[in-house]
Amino acid sequence: MRIALDAMGGDNAPEAVVDGAVEAAQLADGRFELILVGRQDELESYISKRGHSTGNIEIVHAPDVISMSESPATAIRRKREASIVVATKLHKEGVADAVVSAGNTGAAVASSLLSLGRMPGIDRPAIALFFPSRNGGTIVLDGGANSDNVPMHLEQFGYMGAAYAELILGRKNPRVGLLNIGEESSKGSELTREAHELLAASGLNFAGNVEGMDVIAGKVDVVVTDGFTGNVLLKFAESVAHYFGDIIKEGIEESLRAKIGAMFMKPVLRKMGKTLDYAEYGGMPLLGIDGVTIIGHGGSNAKAIKNAVLAAESFVKRDVNGSILIRIQETQ
Amino acid sequence: MRIALDAMGGDNAPEAVVDGAVEAAQLADGRFELILVGRQDELESYISKRGHSTGNIEIVHAPDVISMSESPATAIRRKREASIVVATKLHKEGVADAVVSAGNTGAAVASSLLSLGRMPGIDRPAIALFFPSRNGGTIVLDGGANSDNVPMHLEQFGYMGAAYAELILGRKNPRVGLLNIGEESSKGSELTREAHELLAASGLNFAGNVEGMDVIAGKVDVVVTDGFTGNVLLKFAESVAHYFGDIIKEGIEESLRAKIGAMFMKPVLRKMGKTLDYAEYGGMPLLGIDGVTIIGHGGSNAKAIKNAVLAAESFVKRDVNGSILIRIQETQ
Repeated sequence: MRIALDAMGGDNAPEAVVDGAVEAAQLADGRFELILVGRQDELESYISKRGHSTGNIEIVHAPDVISMSESPATAIRRKREASIVVATKLHKEGVADAVVSAGNTGAAVASSLLSLGRMPGIDRPAIALFFPSRNGGTIVLDGGANSDNVPMHLEQFGYMGAAYAELILGRKNPRVGLLNIGEESSKGSELTREAHELLAASGLNFAGNVEGMDVIAGKVDVVVTDGFTGNVLLKFAESVAHYFGDIIKEGIEESLRAKIGAMFMKPVLRKMGKTLDYAEYGGMPLLGIDGVTIIGHGGSNAKAIKNAVLAAESFVKRDVNGSILIRIQETQ
Repeated sequence: MRIALDAMGGDNAPEAVVDGAVEAAQLADGRFELILVGRQDELESYISKRGHSTGNIEIVHAPDVISMSESPATAIRRKREASIVVATKLHKEGVADAVVSAGNTGAAVASSLLSLGRMPGIDRPAIALFFPSRNGGTIVLDGGANSDNVPMHLEQFGYMGAAYAELILGRKNPRVGLLNIGEESSKGSELTREAHELLAASGLNFAGNVEGMDVIAGKVDVVVTDGFTGNVLLKFAESVAHYFGDIIKEGIEESLRAKIGAMFMKPVLRKMGKTLDYAEYGGMPLLGIDGVTIIGHGGSNAKAIKNAVLAAESFVKRDVNGSILIRIQETQ
């Protein structure tokens, strides 16, 4: 198996991507090889500077870089030799079996759609988020591949999320909930009321409506929502985590007592920190494309990149796309 | 000034409402009187059991109770003598100047709309949420009075939120942001792209799009969003707070070291807890109605009720509705 990395994507690129690739390659044990896609001279000079050994890592040159703030649609059109574009092309051509990018999310989505296309039966791809929760983690989708959705999209997100939760989180017959603002089927927006009907008739293990608090409560394995709501939730959740972290940090800096207390509480605080550290969870797959694209956090460090590579490996090995296809076909 | 309390509303009613009313009444110092609306015998028996002195508290009998889980529209129609319905009627008739309810939110909204109606120039009322943030607090609206909104509603939420932030939080020329999934004006859903245009032309101190993380970052004073997104965010935020609290509690229970650490860290942990305790913030006003309804958290304890009463007093005293009216009229 070969996994292509967008070496120029992310706030800490290319250094963190190279370091993460090297860490992942050391764990590969013959199961996969890596392709770093980016500016060859920059990548080679960093690799030699760090003294990395790169036995199972190849470099493919891509001269252009799409920055985090560029408009995805325009950037994809103008920068045909951008690292993310070249990486998804390598995947399309069969040179790579998956792509990992911590770069501009919109560009990764647009480039994946352009090169790889959608899976048959899927109208819109969706980013599957992982939220830590009381049942060991909840998948929330869409996390922001879309800004507007219609009810049918949410039904399709249900199939994709269920396949992913089953194969990657190991949940049998995953429970799928619809994010809404009330428990009863009559509650919610026009979108969610219609989506509720579709999901109830879908053959999925549909648990009905869930609310904002149920994401972390772990009431279901998969939470289906539109890309707008999912993206707001993701960004809010990250910021809450930082906010609490900062309250604790400031408290410790201001007082010796608190500093001593923090030493005693270290395992608890570490557990909190670990729960909130996206680097632990690897990347988020873009589900519904005819291929495998794993999207890493923009702020990914080497550990996050390593975990994203391992997430890509699992995704390919367990054939999540095959399982999505079967679920879609069964309903048609 | 007279403030009517829905004495039967909330998970801990009527006890917490009565206790909270008594606490508030002790602080009234002649500024306001309270009316407890609910089952007279129940209220009197609890008051005498507790030995409360109720000099400036009157009881108005209302035999019906709307439970937290009842469908608001149906309940309002069928239970014409429900405590929340009688309370809003007292307000309409001028017997009371404001209503406080920690009961079924939908019923409080529906009953307020039915008895008091909308303010001229406002199409939809909105619940103004208070989120703790790095700038001392951010107002987010709508928190769930609506399940579907059109762009014009979001513009109106901007006027209402700005008036509230100015008079209650003391922010001069409050910055208003539009919750979206990207910073550029071209980003987002159809709803937010159109609302962006309206807000940019509104005469408000419009700061453009903000994202999920900006609510807590305190980038703006007011965040405008549809009732669906706002309600999901509110419920998610509360659950995250509990989740972190539980991680710390469990850690302390499992280990003596952590328990000792927590003793040393008490001020920091207390600050965290206080940040997250809705009881500190009193209730959330339903803006845009032709009257004053303060909605308390369903789980309100006596302290939360007391703070909701004080919030109602401030709202009336500072004439937030008058300021909303002026803002609306200036734009027409």
